[in-house]
Amino acid sequence: MAETIDNVNNFDTVALDDDNNALLLVDQTRLPHETVILALTSQREVWEAIRQLRVRGAPAIGVAAAIGLYLAARAIRADTFDGFYREFASAKAYLASARPTAVNLFWALDRMEEVALRHRDKPIPEIIALLRAQTEAIRDEDIQACRRIGEFGLSLLRDKDGLLTVCNAGQLAAVRYGTALAPIYLGLERGMRFRVYACETRPLLQGARLTAFELKQAGVDTTLICDNMVSYVMKNGLVQAVLAGCDRLAANGDACNKIGTSGVAILASYYRIPFYVCAPTSSIDPHTPTGAGIPIEQRPAGEVTDMWYARPMAPTGIHVLNPAFDVTDHSLITAIITDCGILRPPYAFGE
Amino acid sequence: MAETIDNVNNFDTVALDDDNNALLLVDQTRLPHETVILALTSQREVWEAIRQLRVRGAPAIGVAAAIGLYLAARAIRADTFDGFYREFASAKAYLASARPTAVNLFWALDRMEEVALRHRDKPIPEIIALLRAQTEAIRDEDIQACRRIGEFGLSLLRDKDGLLTVCNAGQLAAVRYGTALAPIYLGLERGMRFRVYACETRPLLQGARLTAFELKQAGVDTTLICDNMVSYVMKNGLVQAVLAGCDRLAANGDACNKIGTSGVAILASYYRIPFYVCAPTSSIDPHTPTGAGIPIEQRPAGEVTDMWYARPMAPTGIHVLNPAFDVTDHSLITAIITDCGILRPPYAFGE
Repeated sequence: MAETIDNVNNFDTVALDDDNNALLLVDQTRLPHETVILALTSQREVWEAIRQLRVRGAPAIGVAAAIGLYLAARAIRADTFDGFYREFASAKAYLASARPTAVNLFWALDRMEEVALRHRDKPIPEIIALLRAQTEAIRDEDIQACRRIGEFGLSLLRDKDGLLTVCNAGQLAAVRYGTALAPIYLGLERGMRFRVYACETRPLLQGARLTAFELKQAGVDTTLICDNMVSYVMKNGLVQAVLAGCDRLAANGDACNKIGTSGVAILASYYRIPFYVCAPTSSIDPHTPTGAGIPIEQRPAGEVTDMWYARPMAPTGIHVLNPAFDVTDHSLITAIITDCGILRPPYAFGE
Repeated sequence: MAETIDNVNNFDTVALDDDNNALLLVDQTRLPHETVILALTSQREVWEAIRQLRVRGAPAIGVAAAIGLYLAARAIRADTFDGFYREFASAKAYLASARPTAVNLFWALDRMEEVALRHRDKPIPEIIALLRAQTEAIRDEDIQACRRIGEFGLSLLRDKDGLLTVCNAGQLAAVRYGTALAPIYLGLERGMRFRVYACETRPLLQGARLTAFELKQAGVDTTLICDNMVSYVMKNGLVQAVLAGCDRLAANGDACNKIGTSGVAILASYYRIPFYVCAPTSSIDPHTPTGAGIPIEQRPAGEVTDMWYARPMAPTGIHVLNPAFDVTDHSLITAIITDCGILRPPYAFGE
């Protein structure tokens, strides 16, 4: 089931439709051409939507997975908790296998599982109601966390600053506001005017298709650049700060984010421009000591050679590397902006 | 007039067809799908081919412009040198207006003009014969210069090195061999096996369409990456040296090349990987003291938002920056490999 809407800024990126037992989400593979809301009802559909990046962005993936697991739980027909939990754990493992890098996916699914286990002695319908409440808590916390990231981030920026961002860490990457774009939206509410440079973010062009799209809809002065133009705009004094999202923060502050982020951080360091990582605390993974321990998703070659083109733009059979993420060394990060405040080096995230 | 050929490695990128008074060139906008040889006979066609990047790469542009000016000279109907020269100078100015950055264009046209002026007392048919000889000299010197760049460059590399290159500075950017890829081709002739990482080079994908194509045809182990994956491959130890071409070298060694090159140089410096600029001496512009004086061509927004896509991949009306080049600071260049030898800092090019 799908419907189209006019303005993505008026709609939560991810939501639960209680009446229809469905996960609603904006199909991000169809932006910027069409704003289509999908209504997903099966585990398989939710898994596919995460895998195919119909929903993407670490916070949004977490909320979507929690709702997906709730819908799976609702559909379980079992008389005992053990019978229920067997199917629940299977659904959880299945959803967790959709993508490997963003820790929010596992964090949200773990929170759902904790609710089920904590209330194992209650009747199953009551457990399901508590799981539903937990999806709301995760969603509400995401909205609040993004808003707080926006407040903290805004304190580091000045009116009319040029801000550079990679990929999409905006509203479309969370439920509302986003992480790296939250300070920009909050500034806009208060009459501040930033100039934003959006890196197009090959291969899947989340910067061109999503960031440029949502910022333009919101009325933000936005300029699209190719990923290899970052040094040019920095050298020409157009950028006063970089705002990047994050898919997983290791305990030492190494930040895993969309491919290319580490290169932008090195350029920012070279040009003495502050490089800020914006992330909710749900993106912190204290169990992974350094970025070297974060699994990097390798995606299909076709995304590089022919995704979205009328025909492939590279010779047939050429070798391709397509890592979806890279790790920015903690030494390159000026500050990490979280919902709990602005963290400065040295970084050390405990359990 | 156009014909297709099987293998671009068997054909000079730019050539004069004497029988048909035509400039022959491989239409690089149609690669890698079709290898089409265009036969251009008018100034307007030559200008358009340079402007539209049917022929590109600083050395190739120089040779193409020289042949284009010769063809224009042949067509002039004048009884006196002054009458001849008026039209000749007009054709020269027209061809020089095709693109602003690569200095080889102006260098080649100046060489042609010098021939005409030096022999102003000779009969016009004789001047035209001397201009024809000059196009051959420019072409032959380009081939020899590229071969020497290959020899000098090869002395800096080891068998099995991983080499990263941006845009296309290969055979397709010159008459044969290329500049940055010349060491790779010469190494191949001698049984060496490099692993080459080709940056796709947005927006026009010269790396994906041209470099990956010509290296694969030649049998070189080539891996295509998006421009934002450079930090990833460097961090993972896959790259032992960067080989970049150059469109103009300022007197202090600042190197203007395809957009993104300066960012790659900064990343190479960060990861302590040698960064080599490969350029014939015809790319040196001693009249421009530093890179700040090099005009940077700004190209149309549509190249970023919708070139080659089935439909635009960015929201309608979004602002776009599309500089075709950037300047790599001389302090980031490990060595400049020219046809006259390997230059090390400090760089100082006199007139």
